[in-house]
Amino acid sequence: MLFKRIQSEGLAHNSYLIGDGREAAVIDPRIDCDVYVQEAHFEGFRIRHIFETHRHEDFVLGSVALAARTGAEIWHADSHWDYRYGTAVEDGQKWKIGRLTLEAISSPGHTPGSMSYLLYDPDGNPWIVFTGDALFAGDVGRVDFMGMDRAPEMAGFLYDTIFGRLLPLGDGVMVCPAHGAGSVCASEIGERMWTTIGLERLYNPKLKVRDRNEFISLTAKKLDYSPYFRLMEKLNLEGVQFSDSLPVPLSAGEFARMAQDAVVVDTRMEAAFSASHVPGSLSIWSSGIPNFAGWFLPHDRPILLVNETNNPEQVFRYLVRLGYQNIAGFLAGGMLAWQMAGYECATIKTITVQALCTLFDEQGLTWLLDVRSEAELESAGRITGAHHIHLTEIEDRMEEIPKDRPVYIFCGSGLRSMTAASLLKRKGWENLIVVLGGLAGWKSVSCPLKT
Amino acid sequence: MLFKRIQSEGLAHNSYLIGDGREAAVIDPRIDCDVYVQEAHFEGFRIRHIFETHRHEDFVLGSVALAARTGAEIWHADSHWDYRYGTAVEDGQKWKIGRLTLEAISSPGHTPGSMSYLLYDPDGNPWIVFTGDALFAGDVGRVDFMGMDRAPEMAGFLYDTIFGRLLPLGDGVMVCPAHGAGSVCASEIGERMWTTIGLERLYNPKLKVRDRNEFISLTAKKLDYSPYFRLMEKLNLEGVQFSDSLPVPLSAGEFARMAQDAVVVDTRMEAAFSASHVPGSLSIWSSGIPNFAGWFLPHDRPILLVNETNNPEQVFRYLVRLGYQNIAGFLAGGMLAWQMAGYECATIKTITVQALCTLFDEQGLTWLLDVRSEAELESAGRITGAHHIHLTEIEDRMEEIPKDRPVYIFCGSGLRSMTAASLLKRKGWENLIVVLGGLAGWKSVSCPLKT
Amino acid sequence: MLFKRIQSEGLAHNSYLIGDGREAAVIDPRIDCDVYVQEAHFEGFRIRHIFETHRHEDFVLGSVALAARTGAEIWHADSHWDYRYGTAVEDGQKWKIGRLTLEAISSPGHTPGSMSYLLYDPDGNPWIVFTGDALFAGDVGRVDFMGMDRAPEMAGFLYDTIFGRLLPLGDGVMVCPAHGAGSVCASEIGERMWTTIGLERLYNPKLKVRDRNEFISLTAKKLDYSPYFRLMEKLNLEGVQFSDSLPVPLSAGEFARMAQDAVVVDTRMEAAFSASHVPGSLSIWSSGIPNFAGWFLPHDRPILLVNETNNPEQVFRYLVRLGYQNIAGFLAGGMLAWQMAGYECATIKTITVQALCTLFDEQGLTWLLDVRSEAELESAGRITGAHHIHLTEIEDRMEEIPKDRPVYIFCGSGLRSMTAASLLKRKGWENLIVVLGGLAGWKSVSCPLKT
Amino acid sequence: MLFKRIQSEGLAHNSYLIGDGREAAVIDPRIDCDVYVQEAHFEGFRIRHIFETHRHEDFVLGSVALAARTGAEIWHADSHWDYRYGTAVEDGQKWKIGRLTLEAISSPGHTPGSMSYLLYDPDGNPWIVFTGDALFAGDVGRVDFMGMDRAPEMAGFLYDTIFGRLLPLGDGVMVCPAHGAGSVCASEIGERMWTTIGLERLYNPKLKVRDRNEFISLTAKKLDYSPYFRLMEKLNLEGVQFSDSLPVPLSAGEFARMAQDAVVVDTRMEAAFSASHVPGSLSIWSSGIPNFAGWFLPHDRPILLVNETNNPEQVFRYLVRLGYQNIAGFLAGGMLAWQMAGYECATIKTITVQALCTLFDEQGLTWLLDVRSEAELESAGRITGAHHIHLTEIEDRMEEIPKDRPVYIFCGSGLRSMTAASLLKRKGWENLIVVLGGLAGWKSVSCPLKT
Repeated sequence: MLFKRIQSEGLAHNSYLIGDGREAAVIDPRIDCDVYVQEAHFEGFRIRHIFETHRHEDFVLGSVALAARTGAEIWHADSHWDYRYGTAVEDGQKWKIGRLTLEAISSPGHTPGSMSYLLYDPDGNPWIVFTGDALFAGDVGRVDFMGMDRAPEMAGFLYDTIFGRLLPLGDGVMVCPAHGAGSVCASEIGERMWTTIGLERLYNPKLKVRDRNEFISLTAKKLDYSPYFRLMEKLNLEGVQFSDSLPVPLSAGEFARMAQDAVVVDTRMEAAFSASHVPGSLSIWSSGIPNFAGWFLPHDRPILLVNETNNPEQVFRYLVRLGYQNIAGFLAGGMLAWQMAGYECATIKTITVQALCTLFDEQGLTWLLDVRSEAELESAGRITGAHHIHLTEIEDRMEEIPKDRPVYIFCGSGLRSMTAASLLKRKGWENLIVVLGGLAGWKSVSCPLKT
Repeated sequence: MLFKRIQSEGLAHNSYLIGDGREAAVIDPRIDCDVYVQEAHFEGFRIRHIFETHRHEDFVLGSVALAARTGAEIWHADSHWDYRYGTAVEDGQKWKIGRLTLEAISSPGHTPGSMSYLLYDPDGNPWIVFTGDALFAGDVGRVDFMGMDRAPEMAGFLYDTIFGRLLPLGDGVMVCPAHGAGSVCASEIGERMWTTIGLERLYNPKLKVRDRNEFISLTAKKLDYSPYFRLMEKLNLEGVQFSDSLPVPLSAGEFARMAQDAVVVDTRMEAAFSASHVPGSLSIWSSGIPNFAGWFLPHDRPILLVNETNNPEQVFRYLVRLGYQNIAGFLAGGMLAWQMAGYECATIKTITVQALCTLFDEQGLTWLLDVRSEAELESAGRITGAHHIHLTEIEDRMEEIPKDRPVYIFCGSGLRSMTAASLLKRKGWENLIVVLGGLAGWKSVSCPLKT
Repeated sequence: MLFKRIQSEGLAHNSYLIGDGREAAVIDPRIDCDVYVQEAHFEGFRIRHIFETHRHEDFVLGSVALAARTGAEIWHADSHWDYRYGTAVEDGQKWKIGRLTLEAISSPGHTPGSMSYLLYDPDGNPWIVFTGDALFAGDVGRVDFMGMDRAPEMAGFLYDTIFGRLLPLGDGVMVCPAHGAGSVCASEIGERMWTTIGLERLYNPKLKVRDRNEFISLTAKKLDYSPYFRLMEKLNLEGVQFSDSLPVPLSAGEFARMAQDAVVVDTRMEAAFSASHVPGSLSIWSSGIPNFAGWFLPHDRPILLVNETNNPEQVFRYLVRLGYQNIAGFLAGGMLAWQMAGYECATIKTITVQALCTLFDEQGLTWLLDVRSEAELESAGRITGAHHIHLTEIEDRMEEIPKDRPVYIFCGSGLRSMTAASLLKRKGWENLIVVLGGLAGWKSVSCPLKT
Repeated sequence: MLFKRIQSEGLAHNSYLIGDGREAAVIDPRIDCDVYVQEAHFEGFRIRHIFETHRHEDFVLGSVALAARTGAEIWHADSHWDYRYGTAVEDGQKWKIGRLTLEAISSPGHTPGSMSYLLYDPDGNPWIVFTGDALFAGDVGRVDFMGMDRAPEMAGFLYDTIFGRLLPLGDGVMVCPAHGAGSVCASEIGERMWTTIGLERLYNPKLKVRDRNEFISLTAKKLDYSPYFRLMEKLNLEGVQFSDSLPVPLSAGEFARMAQDAVVVDTRMEAAFSASHVPGSLSIWSSGIPNFAGWFLPHDRPILLVNETNNPEQVFRYLVRLGYQNIAGFLAGGMLAWQMAGYECATIKTITVQALCTLFDEQGLTWLLDVRSEAELESAGRITGAHHIHLTEIEDRMEEIPKDRPVYIFCGSGLRSMTAASLLKRKGWENLIVVLGGLAGWKSVSCPLKT
């Protein structure tokens, strides 16, 4: 028997490979789907079925790509939408995978036609439920994708799904959702990476409601909506093929020429970026790519990469999962090559939390920009006097930020602050100082202004 | 946060790596412990603690080896025994691993001093219980290791452990045992590789008892006791260091010379062995090594390997986990090299199930040796007229097998039959025929003699 | 600077990756061209040029596939032929690769328009000459591809190439040919895997000639011409794209159904094949695939694989390099799965050299079939009384082999004998016995009949 | 047959693995010797012999470690020294490795008892000569290790070795030295990574001498002598065992505590270091470790690492090859973790070459420190007015550098400048500015002050 969770880090995306008796199935595959073929085929399991829990919004599904390599049949949820591939699933439909059985459970709420899939063990007992974006560890799926006007309706559907279909499966049944902590598909997914109906019933804060109405009012909220979601929705109806064309290495000279018509993303850590970067480049540290590339990088202009190493594979995979097929190359030899070719380098100032504290003691409060999310403000605390604009809103609210005085930018660690600084700098801000260590560092040194 | 199950295939052994906030712990590590160091350290987690659920009998623990590489502290159960390393654990003792908490739960039954460990999630909720050999998916630990006279007493302890300590943790709590299906530490572990208290409460046949007495009568049974268990018990009290000295390649000439004082194990598939093997060699196909090497291979004489390839690493790891440090080399170039060097080759006859059926139709029943286990006979069916001796008992019951007529040997597939045939041939039996495909093939062709 | 030889084992094919200053070039790339991208791009070298020494006959070139992934320009030799891609090279043409220079040297003989490429080191000194199939270690390229009537003419060209263009480069210049020992593109390539002009001048037996005429008479010979060569020639003019669609695992039942319209190739060792194989299957041990698949496997019918393991990647690569894109799947679980499914198994008898010697002593000579090549007969010796048919001619000369008496087949080791036996068995021969160990074993035991 | 060059990058060290007929030998193995075992044993070749060309000074030999894993016999040169292991080699001694022959050729000069080894191909022809540190591509071994008073004598020996023993082997013989470009064992090894007697005879500038005296005067020079050489010499007489204990991850808190008694090395690129580093840490970018660690890192105090990632394996291997067994741990999570823990961070200022040019135009020449080697000054050009102190001499000549004014530091690229800056900063210099891009950048922008 085969049961594997394949995680796409960064996206906090979980897909699942199950198999028995030479047959296998994948639930919600990612686009770079070689991993499933290797894990299944080299164990002698042929992938026969691909199941989608819903039309995902935050990454491109690999169903069509995986089917092309394996001949598997694709089963999609959200059947009311206009799919260009696969077969629609019906509530209660069952499939045999060797001695295992998989049963579709209609699970609307996150999308109108979401499906969960219940896996029965070889003895026919309910074992694992793949809940897609309906039920997570510690949270439930967001319900604002149909628009805020339909959010209460969708939240009601989700209540019915969870309380009417999922919880009755029994406390012992394992819950395997499509996302873990860090996903943009829910606000507060917990770190309990393996969970059960029973644990969610007891500990999931969203399930501790008196009734349907309380659930609706608790969950029918607007969350960040990244501009690339629309494209993902479109692509996931059309089906996406995978191209493994890794970006090519570019000499500094080529890079400089191509950069004139391209967007340059620098995936190094914030400190390296601060010291020297290609003028006009955007800073998104590599493990931040899955969360933030979709906000700031275009799908229709060439993208150029600056990395710490000459191996762009990890960043390439991150971007491909977000639907980017426009990665034109990377700077061979990194910033050192750029510097040695004598090209101009830009810098962004940084400050340590100690120095910032001293500065405040001496000079009093200056203009402080906090780019953390609202949720973080609530859980981790605010800084008195700081101006708050979440990183994802920076481009829309730039006019709130002064150009004529130093702006100290901080987040949780300093990473997102550098992204914000690079965005502002591209638009003409010059007096930007990123706080290294961010709020975490601040708390550690017990600066006085934390509330 | 870090949570990984590390499986040692073949042994069906599960170990676990958990971590949070730069600290990690391993539960029941295996001896080739590089995997934990890589998975933890390269993620920035330092292994601080090693927890043993009990003094294992079926493999050598890697606690001492892992501690040597990491500086971790070893915590052992079964504290009444005379350990040469580590610190004894007490019921209720707790450890912090970042934001996680681990708590020891006294769990006697399989051994007198077994421990389970309950992991609380970052929010302080009971999450996962590591049950060692107390509770498996679909089975419970065997209780005959203290001798059959104490088995009822141990079974009673185990009842108290499961019903008094583990089930009360709640249906939603996940259960992570030390073994999966195929282990020698219980007779009927199921394939539900991830399970929960709730699923075991509902579906584990050993838990469907009226009372303590019924549990005792159901579980206080004698199971196969491999001769190497005694050595494992001794080594696991002393602590074992790891040596990564892979066996060296030997030319056919060297191999032939060394084979005179060594035990030769051929790990190729049964068909290849049948056609040509080093005279006197023992057939154990590679994935059968974890289960059967301990029965038939000595720890105190040189062992020589014949493989399909020149890479003996997988077989080496299997053997090292069983405490073998006496692997002297492998036949470079495999049997082809042996044949090309002009050395004598032995063969064992085989027969397909079709041919066997025809033979029976024509000649009537001959002497049929069934080497499957008693449990398989019950679940998969007996063959009328076959003589049954479990593979592990062959060496003690050879005199029951005739030398003067053809002996047809079968098992589930043909693999263990070849092991049996190679054992018998070493002792002088000559007229041996292994049934390829075994009972599985037999059923498929619907031979008439199956009952 | 970058200089790597990439060997395609089995084909005995050498390709070369050279680079300097962010630019790289590949000479005679293979079709599974990921290796070049990884070795070059991840070191920061972009592949700019692809050079072909000639239109290869024995494998599909990866020029078009590699250009698609890198944007490199393709430079082909043999410009009088009708290429669908790339640009023709002219004698004396030069390219800069960083500080390196590469210069084309017209080198006709093996093909009418072959090219060598001389690499100058960063200081401008002649360093390495890539000789394609003109000059090998210990041999020269075969000249019979244009037909035997043109062979003397081509041999004359080759003499002019070697003595007029290559040897004058100087004894110290390194020679990097397109093939090593074992290639079908010359009869006697030596094992000196790195060589120089000086070493070839001194030790290459084909260069120890008095004059052009002696060279022609020495080299204008007909060698084995595999039926797939024609297809390779055609494909290498058209350009071949790479498909990485690994064969899928098939259950025994699926395999049995598909086998009715397919060719089954069993890549296990000869002993395993002898004991049990899918009826009608062809035996070619895996490392024999590059040399013999082209003789016996069709390009236009589905091919099914039987392997020792579930990972068919190596065999897949071997076949793809020979232009096979018709590999339909592999038997998941190997022969064991087939046997356990109760399907019929075929066998081929084997005999050890000892037993054969005894047999001869007792019974006198029987019908012995020697499938080695003529060259092996000369170098390693003939067996008195044996009938010689080279493996590659078996299909054309089957009528020479008796069906009414035992035929003992041998080669160097037993591997090719099993291929021959499987070919004969498909055509109705039944009394076939393969000699395990072949001539090597025979020599080792000093059987009396060797001459 | 087996012939592989195993390069230890950074050290520019070449070792060689040769084999034939199940037997293999290694020439000058490195200490992390798993690579030889894998390459040889998994191909079925047993390593039987280990040959040393001389007692190396710049890295620890792996002879004793490799012998422990393989049982190989160790053959050492420099037999007049007091070795604790192995057997001394004599001039003309021969060994058989399958069909290959290896012959020792006395080659004094670099050390008094150096040996070369000539490999004959399977046909008995001279093929490859392993020249150790006697003859390189484009250079010869340094002769100052016995002291400058004996350098002329040693240079004379080396002349006799090269002209009397090596060149007579013939132009076609391949030359495989123990080092490539970048080694500290000669000043000007070229990039011709594969070479021959003929190429060296023609193009090696050290061989273009009229007579022995000219050779002596050309080569009897004092080169940089790193303080760790003495230790290497001692260890290579004693024999070194390998310990694979990778450094452990340390939390920021632990790191801070341990750093008080340790030397902290930061292996990130120079830009990242400049922006934020652990106060007091030394900057050596990772690929600079092999060349510079030996100058600045102690062997007798704990070493702590700061990396870009959590995988310290590459740096660990680099350091182990230099005899470091005192690596106590690495900063888990890198500088980000340090910053988030609120610890103090240090910075070093940088300047681009453009800004520096502007500065010079505006302010005239300031205090410029050039840390390149004398050889680079000669080949790449000097900067007018710059003060030159080679990086390796910084610690001895610090008093020449002013503390009361800005010191602009540059090298070829900026990397070594940052090492110099970190050394100076530890001793109290504060006004240090590293020129990013170094001389390469400078040339590219055509600043006016270059001569």
